[in-house]
Amino acid sequence: MFFYKNNELYVEDVKVSDIALEYKTPIYIYSKNHFENQYKKLDQKITRKHLICFALKANSNLAVINTFAKLGAGADVVSAGEIFRAKKAGIDTTKIVFSGVGKTQEEIKYAIENNILMFNVESFEELEEIENVASSLGKIAQISFRVNPNVDPKTHPYISTGLKKNKFGISYTQIIDAYKLANQMKHVRIKGIQFHIGSQLTDVSPFFEAQLKVANIMKELLSLGIKLDIIDIGGGLGVVYENEQEPDLDQYSNFINQAFKDFPDSLIVLEPGRFLVANGGIFVTKVLYRKQNEGKNFYIVDGAMNDLIRPSLYDAYHKIEPVVKKNVAKVQADIVGPVCESGDFFAKSREIDNLERNDLVSIFSSGAYGFTMASNYNSRCRPAEVLVDKDTVKVVRSRETFEDLIRGEAI
Amino acid sequence: MFFYKNNELYVEDVKVSDIALEYKTPIYIYSKNHFENQYKKLDQKITRKHLICFALKANSNLAVINTFAKLGAGADVVSAGEIFRAKKAGIDTTKIVFSGVGKTQEEIKYAIENNILMFNVESFEELEEIENVASSLGKIAQISFRVNPNVDPKTHPYISTGLKKNKFGISYTQIIDAYKLANQMKHVRIKGIQFHIGSQLTDVSPFFEAQLKVANIMKELLSLGIKLDIIDIGGGLGVVYENEQEPDLDQYSNFINQAFKDFPDSLIVLEPGRFLVANGGIFVTKVLYRKQNEGKNFYIVDGAMNDLIRPSLYDAYHKIEPVVKKNVAKVQADIVGPVCESGDFFAKSREIDNLERNDLVSIFSSGAYGFTMASNYNSRCRPAEVLVDKDTVKVVRSRETFEDLIRGEAI
Ligand SMILES: Cc1ncc(COP(=O)(O)O)c(C=O)c1O
Ligand SMILES: Cc1ncc(COP(=O)(O)O)c(C=O)c1O
Repeated sequence: MFFYKNNELYVEDVKVSDIALEYKTPIYIYSKNHFENQYKKLDQKITRKHLICFALKANSNLAVINTFAKLGAGADVVSAGEIFRAKKAGIDTTKIVFSGVGKTQEEIKYAIENNILMFNVESFEELEEIENVASSLGKIAQISFRVNPNVDPKTHPYISTGLKKNKFGISYTQIIDAYKLANQMKHVRIKGIQFHIGSQLTDVSPFFEAQLKVANIMKELLSLGIKLDIIDIGGGLGVVYENEQEPDLDQYSNFINQAFKDFPDSLIVLEPGRFLVANGGIFVTKVLYRKQNEGKNFYIVDGAMNDLIRPSLYDAYHKIEPVVKKNVAKVQADIVGPVCESGDFFAKSREIDNLERNDLVSIFSSGAYGFTMASNYNSRCRPAEVLVDKDTVKVVRSRETFEDLIRGEAI
Repeated sequence: MFFYKNNELYVEDVKVSDIALEYKTPIYIYSKNHFENQYKKLDQKITRKHLICFALKANSNLAVINTFAKLGAGADVVSAGEIFRAKKAGIDTTKIVFSGVGKTQEEIKYAIENNILMFNVESFEELEEIENVASSLGKIAQISFRVNPNVDPKTHPYISTGLKKNKFGISYTQIIDAYKLANQMKHVRIKGIQFHIGSQLTDVSPFFEAQLKVANIMKELLSLGIKLDIIDIGGGLGVVYENEQEPDLDQYSNFINQAFKDFPDSLIVLEPGRFLVANGGIFVTKVLYRKQNEGKNFYIVDGAMNDLIRPSLYDAYHKIEPVVKKNVAKVQADIVGPVCESGDFFAKSREIDNLERNDLVSIFSSGAYGFTMASNYNSRCRPAEVLVDKDTVKVVRSRETFEDLIRGEAI
């Protein structure tokens, strides 16, 4: 729901430049209807009985979570902080799945007390910890195991998580033993199986490869008398940043149906993050200065790596365009922020319209892994976030102030 | 001031394990006396008249800044937020130098109103902006130019800043014109010249190379009748993370004396960050779980990349040792955090004592670019920071709470 009309960038019914004028820059701007549409599209394409658990790590703003909560979403969380957010935002805690390799005792306790749907258990020691905590609370914890299927998702190494060299999940060779062990525990109830092989997959065939492996595990478990109610197929559906192919959702759904045809009663849980939110957000920043260093052009903008670290951390590509397009020549330039590191850049040697001071630029596809990764590096206040619904603009997180920077500090 | 006694790690007179027990993990622990000693060492080695402006970006905790303020330090800042911090921490604003390629109009105004020592100007357009803001305030702004000397500091590309392909400073070929222009401006007073070629230099000879270039510029300026009061030689002095050579401070001082011998009256300003604080801080984290994935060992700890991003962002090496050393065999393991990314690691294939659950480990050299780069990624609360002075432990920033996570948000 971001588009140009008469060379002006709009978010839904509102001019982006008007928002920037009123709420200043740098700023994150979200399109509520984009979020809703992505959710509905996925929801409709998956033909089996399913539950979409939004992966909060992609965008954990309360208003964004609430948008999905209203559509019936659950949440995929990775910390007690995310459970707290999910609750605040109106997600039914019985629709929460708790992922992550390092759940602390306090977090496990908090999750059990909140009656979450299940823990996605990633190690034998974690299983033991859950059993102990549940036992001390006199409760039963529902679990699934995350299996590491050793499938190459062919994505950035930092977001590739399903190879056996990765820290995630329980290896294929140990997974049956894990279930056998859990099956004997008093305070643990086996609910399902989970996997997540990586993020930003636009080709859905690696998912299928993993699904087939998981179905095999399920068959083996069945022969041991262990029947699983839930098949959690993780997240990882990619989006278009530049010129990627959109993932084929029909094929994705068919793969699921095909891989798990022998388990028609199991609930499919999905954990999409990026797919739901990435292209529903832009990061808008203003050109402060232009400079040339020996033939190289630089546009220095008021946003920085502390606000949006993806280019710096993952060498991620984000489309960048002026908020108001003028009919001007293109130049090649680095678009960089004020932070005192060469790593503080949004684009290098990018073809872009010749910009002037105070021009606004939109950094597209910033709705996922944008604000959630923001820091206060260089004592910069984190930007505001606004959510637009048709002609309504709402500040869903206010810009930080100097007082926020030093909160909790004492000399 | 971190050392082992009877196999127990101490910070000054206090056992690190006692601090972890009382204030929980993960946690940053700082040694006040290490900070003071580093400052005094540098202060004594530099034989010329000088001012040490602590680069706040390395560690901007108020109590840390205050430690240096009490020793007479100024501050090198890169944002209005850092000016705010410097003031709060008792730094005399007339000892503040303001660096950075992207100073906003509001920041320039704030800096002028606070009578800072000087702006280190990085572009012609910034110069113009400063002139305009000063003019509108009816004030004179003191400036120096940051020159980009095109010297290779031979360090990580992200913290290498003095090459002509970098965004920093004004190129060698344009610098004289910049001074000529400033010299004609009514609301700008030329104070000095600055350079900063990169960070974590343990060989000081690239500094000398840059200093000689700067001295040449100064001579040329003198012939034009422009005399500089201040020579700001930037930061960048390295520290020992692993087995580097400590930078030779005598040589560093000699180089300064030699390079600038024709300018005996100019004040030398230094902007050290890392050198003052890196080894005065540790990050302590607890082993949550151990696991093996097909022959590979993992220690999953309760700290993560959101707390300390250097390994992930720069592939930085940090020494890691158990807080209590037991006489056990060594293993090779990845030390990783709970965040759901393969990029969340502190060390890969590291030889380390065989650890057990709940063992504490210290990640050394975390006093610089540690907490300042921390985020709330995965809705994790940022850790506490404590400052130890002999037998006194003070919480100088309290651990964040769930309420802190959602501050400013609205549905
Ligand atoms: C376990 C798990 N589920 C879901 C996700 C969401 O991934 P994506 O945003 O690619 O859909 C992640 C991302 O890291 C994850 O680790
Ligand atoms: C202008 C400037 N001065 C000083 C520093 C501090 O550098 P260091 O911590 O290496 O001393 C930096 C670091 O980025 C910088 O950019």
